[in-house]
Amino acid sequence: MATRNNPVRIGGILSPVLTPFKRDLSPDTDRWIKHCKWLLANNVGLAVFGTNSEANSLSTDEKLEMLERILASGVEASRMMPGTGCCALTDSVRLTSYAVKRGCAGVLMLPPFYYKGVSEEGLFRSFCEIIERVGDERLRIYLYHIPPVSQIAITPALVQRLLARYPGIIAGMKDSSGDWNNTKTMLDNFAKDGFDVFVGAESFLLANMRNGGRGCISATANVNPAAIHKLFANWQSGDAERMQEDLNGVRSVFQKAPMIAAMKAAVAHYGNDPAWNTMRPPLVELSQAQQAEILGELSAKGFEMPGLR
Amino acid sequence: MATRNNPVRIGGILSPVLTPFKRDLSPDTDRWIKHCKWLLANNVGLAVFGTNSEANSLSTDEKLEMLERILASGVEASRMMPGTGCCALTDSVRLTSYAVKRGCAGVLMLPPFYYKGVSEEGLFRSFCEIIERVGDERLRIYLYHIPPVSQIAITPALVQRLLARYPGIIAGMKDSSGDWNNTKTMLDNFAKDGFDVFVGAESFLLANMRNGGRGCISATANVNPAAIHKLFANWQSGDAERMQEDLNGVRSVFQKAPMIAAMKAAVAHYGNDPAWNTMRPPLVELSQAQQAEILGELSAKGFEMPGLR
Repeated sequence: MATRNNPVRIGGILSPVLTPFKRDLSPDTDRWIKHCKWLLANNVGLAVFGTNSEANSLSTDEKLEMLERILASGVEASRMMPGTGCCALTDSVRLTSYAVKRGCAGVLMLPPFYYKGVSEEGLFRSFCEIIERVGDERLRIYLYHIPPVSQIAITPALVQRLLARYPGIIAGMKDSSGDWNNTKTMLDNFAKDGFDVFVGAESFLLANMRNGGRGCISATANVNPAAIHKLFANWQSGDAERMQEDLNGVRSVFQKAPMIAAMKAAVAHYGNDPAWNTMRPPLVELSQAQQAEILGELSAKGFEMPGLR
Repeated sequence: MATRNNPVRIGGILSPVLTPFKRDLSPDTDRWIKHCKWLLANNVGLAVFGTNSEANSLSTDEKLEMLERILASGVEASRMMPGTGCCALTDSVRLTSYAVKRGCAGVLMLPPFYYKGVSEEGLFRSFCEIIERVGDERLRIYLYHIPPVSQIAITPALVQRLLARYPGIIAGMKDSSGDWNNTKTMLDNFAKDGFDVFVGAESFLLANMRNGGRGCISATANVNPAAIHKLFANWQSGDAERMQEDLNGVRSVFQKAPMIAAMKAAVAHYGNDPAWNTMRPPLVELSQAQQAEILGELSAKGFEMPGLR
């Protein structure tokens, strides 16, 4: 696999970075950059503006301003894969162009997701149009397949057409289908062509690595980065299956409540920073009872977030 | 029903105006304004930036520029109900503020639609936050219930909470559920409080008017405006049921293909203006075979679009 060891391509563990908000619901960019730096210190790259970033509750202008701020703060663009796929073609182009010009390792691209039941041809044209308008050979697109939320699938047939038209630029996929059979199909069909498959949850990390995948981009890498990276770094070790089970155990706690709010509650608690609990509508923070349950279970597992404070 | 005859409130037939695109896929604002004026001449108001406008494929900047252009062209803001509900709170606020300041009769507001399974509380907060930020007593919000596309329902419980908090500002709903029972529930529960119910298709127009509704906002009002308005104006006449049947017959033709593309094909054909066939991805134009089928069936019905050329 040519790209597996290609130092130019980003790999390993990335996190759709949580977005903290101020009391006036504007993005709290200082807190966000601090969290990004903590993730980087734990060997986790920055898939900012993902689903778990509440990114679709942010305007394009807000995202561009945040990107500018974080790059000005000294964070390496080579460790970033911002989400840039929007409903509107023109928004996707603006965000993607900016990310490429600033040297981001790649972009994670949702298909346009308002219209349902759209044709493969329509999705193909959408991605082609973005690529042509961005017009930069450095562009690396990771297709974002998350049908439970976007309701729009990135099918193998679509990947095939895009790869044939734009080899190299179509760099891979984040598969958040939660369906290992789909991931396996993508790996079997396309990994040999330099298509890097990231699973959308660390629960599939070991299986992905064993089948030629590139890593994972997982929500819970926001809260459990070091342990998830450790499995990535040691997936061939005899200890890998036990590590996978431990990761699954922590993840299952966060799945007992709405996950974004649960992760924010954990960052607020372990970072001793209650401002982190703020959510932008339509999402809401955990109730006191939900918080107590999640934090109690994490504590019972001996969960920690070292270095967060 | 206090509002039924309230001259301040918009009523009757509105169209989610089709958006023509130039070959470079930018909005063709001149063609759009011409179509808007044709609709107005046929007694149809302008619910620009609706689902059938491909509005969710346009950026907020594009929509603001189009609004500015159409208002500068002399179209009356009192005949306009632009769609202003976006995924991002800040986009919804920008668009809604602009529409209110320029005197639009109301705004048609989608709930934020990326995140699925969101709570009633989260949707309530979303609408409240927009209303507070816009901060203008002239604001009239028509809630846009279109679960087949948005996947997010505006439930009776949510309407009740919003109406109690913002009577007058929460002015009504467009019900595009396609479920008459839902429309009836909204009418029975809220019409008496000045909540104006518009059905999302003219197939329910007569039923809506007989049950205290305010009109309809229908895709096919783009192509069949005069006849739809005629039923609205004469719904108490003995001829109403026959008129309803005729409307249903025309509508059924457009439903035989993807509807937005089919309507554009009709405008292109009857207006002798092939540029109208252009769609912005992810939507695509009709195939030649689909065009021939739709236009053939329309012709067989003696369908016309007088005054379009």
